[in-house]
Amino acid sequence: KNEENPGSELPKVNAAPAVDLAAWLEELPPTMAQAQLLALALPRRTETFSYLQPNMQLALARRLDRRDLVEIVTQMSADDRADLFNHLTPEEQQRLLRGLAREEREDIRRLSAYAEGTAGAIMTSDYATLAADMTAHEAIELLRRKAPEKETIYRSYILDCERRLIGSIRLHELILAAADTRIEEIMDHAPVSVALDSDQEKVAQLIARYDLLALPVVDKGGRLVGIVTHDDAADAMQAETTEDFQKIATVRPFSQSVREASMGVLYRKRIFWLVLLVFGNLFSGAGIAFFEETILAYVSLVFFLPLLIDSSGNAGSQSATLMVRALATGDVALKDWRNLILRELLIALALGATMALVVFPVGLLRGGSEIALVVGLTMLLVVIIGSLAGMSLPFLLSRLRLDPATASAPLVTTISDAVGVLVYFWIATAMLSL
Amino acid sequence: KNEENPGSELPKVNAAPAVDLAAWLEELPPTMAQAQLLALALPRRTETFSYLQPNMQLALARRLDRRDLVEIVTQMSADDRADLFNHLTPEEQQRLLRGLAREEREDIRRLSAYAEGTAGAIMTSDYATLAADMTAHEAIELLRRKAPEKETIYRSYILDCERRLIGSIRLHELILAAADTRIEEIMDHAPVSVALDSDQEKVAQLIARYDLLALPVVDKGGRLVGIVTHDDAADAMQAETTEDFQKIATVRPFSQSVREASMGVLYRKRIFWLVLLVFGNLFSGAGIAFFEETILAYVSLVFFLPLLIDSSGNAGSQSATLMVRALATGDVALKDWRNLILRELLIALALGATMALVVFPVGLLRGGSEIALVVGLTMLLVVIIGSLAGMSLPFLLSRLRLDPATASAPLVTTISDAVGVLVYFWIATAMLSL
Repeated sequence: KNEENPGSELPKVNAAPAVDLAAWLEELPPTMAQAQLLALALPRRTETFSYLQPNMQLALARRLDRRDLVEIVTQMSADDRADLFNHLTPEEQQRLLRGLAREEREDIRRLSAYAEGTAGAIMTSDYATLAADMTAHEAIELLRRKAPEKETIYRSYILDCERRLIGSIRLHELILAAADTRIEEIMDHAPVSVALDSDQEKVAQLIARYDLLALPVVDKGGRLVGIVTHDDAADAMQAETTEDFQKIATVRPFSQSVREASMGVLYRKRIFWLVLLVFGNLFSGAGIAFFEETILAYVSLVFFLPLLIDSSGNAGSQSATLMVRALATGDVALKDWRNLILRELLIALALGATMALVVFPVGLLRGGSEIALVVGLTMLLVVIIGSLAGMSLPFLLSRLRLDPATASAPLVTTISDAVGVLVYFWIATAMLSL
Repeated sequence: KNEENPGSELPKVNAAPAVDLAAWLEELPPTMAQAQLLALALPRRTETFSYLQPNMQLALARRLDRRDLVEIVTQMSADDRADLFNHLTPEEQQRLLRGLAREEREDIRRLSAYAEGTAGAIMTSDYATLAADMTAHEAIELLRRKAPEKETIYRSYILDCERRLIGSIRLHELILAAADTRIEEIMDHAPVSVALDSDQEKVAQLIARYDLLALPVVDKGGRLVGIVTHDDAADAMQAETTEDFQKIATVRPFSQSVREASMGVLYRKRIFWLVLLVFGNLFSGAGIAFFEETILAYVSLVFFLPLLIDSSGNAGSQSATLMVRALATGDVALKDWRNLILRELLIALALGATMALVVFPVGLLRGGSEIALVVGLTMLLVVIIGSLAGMSLPFLLSRLRLDPATASAPLVTTISDAVGVLVYFWIATAMLSL
């Protein structure tokens, strides 16, 4: 196909990896990108198309005539195909399905049906299967014939007559074995697998734990329905981690690139929690209003207000963020809360005591020994309260089956602030005998 | 070896994956763990040992007699071996080196010499190489003989006579090719590679971008010195991300499990920034002290203080965290700052205006129209200031070659607080004509 259109193609196009080619196409206006894409030979055209961002894929899918689109889509890997399909309008989906062979049609319908964030949604049906009674030689010959279609042949799966997963074997084990060895003698009889509705975070954790290239996905009857490859699991994990960062900063999750997100999207994702936390902060305000007389009598107390409530919030953010991350990586589980809360109390005690010592001389300088005592004691208490609240909130959310990352630093800060204001002025009112 | 000691081994030991076996050994007292480890047959013993946590490896390495230790260490993959070596004391290193063959000895010395966080530190020397003029058949035969030693043979590297990397080829390409095809006809002539001192984050980004199983590492002369496998890159990336979470919450980075970290470690990692930020907060206090008369005249202004400074900090944390993550994943680069700052200004304007509208009626209720105007205007300004500061700080740090993740939410909050206090009382003093 290259010969049809030699002038419009840049020299680097022939040598560059498909992912770089895709990045280059995305900089072009759609008409030119379309021309450049069609100028590529077919397997390379599909590979490049698969690497384009969803928006660009969609724009091109809508411009291409059906014959060209079907040609590309037929060759795409099953999971990429299902992803593209999910982005199309119902009419476009029908138009596309009409052009595909029955096998691809059913595969798309099946793969696009699983809930986002599950193993089913990120698995692919491009895997190689073998029978237990084949010899190593027969297996290699079969893989040679099938290899070009399959996303990975480095591990093959062994199924019984009802498609139940009974083993797996790696390509180099087949190559190393004597030609007449039967697969069942050398296969791994207990391959790790996950259920269709397993969380994608768990999939990525298992792949990392067992250093796998791919993880098989089975239905309730133990039948193999797909595999999740290590690169797709890594992409899913990276997206989940970015979501955790967003949530920790009270940005509602969005999957676009920050660089390319529109102002409207960023505004909507950020304003929700900002406004919600304003109402949370009114509690702090109410606490202050309640103690207005104390403030008028000792206006120097206001000097320490930002310092005390910020310190409480900072200690709480530390604990909350450590726990959010530990829960996400599997370092800590729900049941560990009991063991960790006592340790947290002791650490918070040490942190609070240190900070009380730091702030005490400032209190002496600004307001005398009584104020210094009030400020020091408040510091000790609010650091403990902030730490315990920050540590517990992610567990509580997890227990309620909510995402622990919702225990954002600003949320913990707002809670700590309200409690801190009350503790501060309550101690002041009591100790300064007002 | 299993027959020597059949009674002390649990039934599950024979079937379980090595990583699970390692987790089980870690729950045992060292004496029993040692006995169980030595009861395993050799390739499995080494694999299990490789999966143990550094502390446990070290404890066992110190208990085992030299012959047993050397037997295990000789079979370990080159990178795991170098890691263990780096944890030993100089005397133990010498004791171990004396037991090893010359080849392993030099390999350890070389791999353990690279700075942490670089490609050199996480690469392994277990890779397969081929010559360009071999046939596919010769190559497969060579790999069959070498395979048991190599961590991955799914991609082989083609070197010229001076060990310069001139190509790479995948195992299935060799298997699919006709037996007499010469490697140079089918190899990839421009394999992606990195330099020895490349950041491990960049290594992980390249592996993800090009969907690689391993990335070759070359020295300044283009000679192949090692490969980084996808699982080691993923582990390194996960550790870097956990570090980013820690830094964002002003916890100084530590690599241990949060669940297993001692109280002393957690105290030390957390107290540094908490105390530093206390001094930062004294600026807010100083601002308040400067405007004490305004506060005495309009004590209801204090009601809005936590709300205004928190909102500024929250908006700033959002921007900072989004940028820290985008810089870490490569979504945003240093040069993008110019393009993003204008967008940020417009978004912050919209956010600030919305929040001013939310807080205005509260101002009316609590203090009348003048206070409401002061509070609304302050809100608009501090949200803009917080957002711009939060967005710019990670870029500034990155520009100064510091880690952008140091632009933690609490640091941004403290800066925003100090500016917010000044803006608030300055506007109040001006508008309430004090």
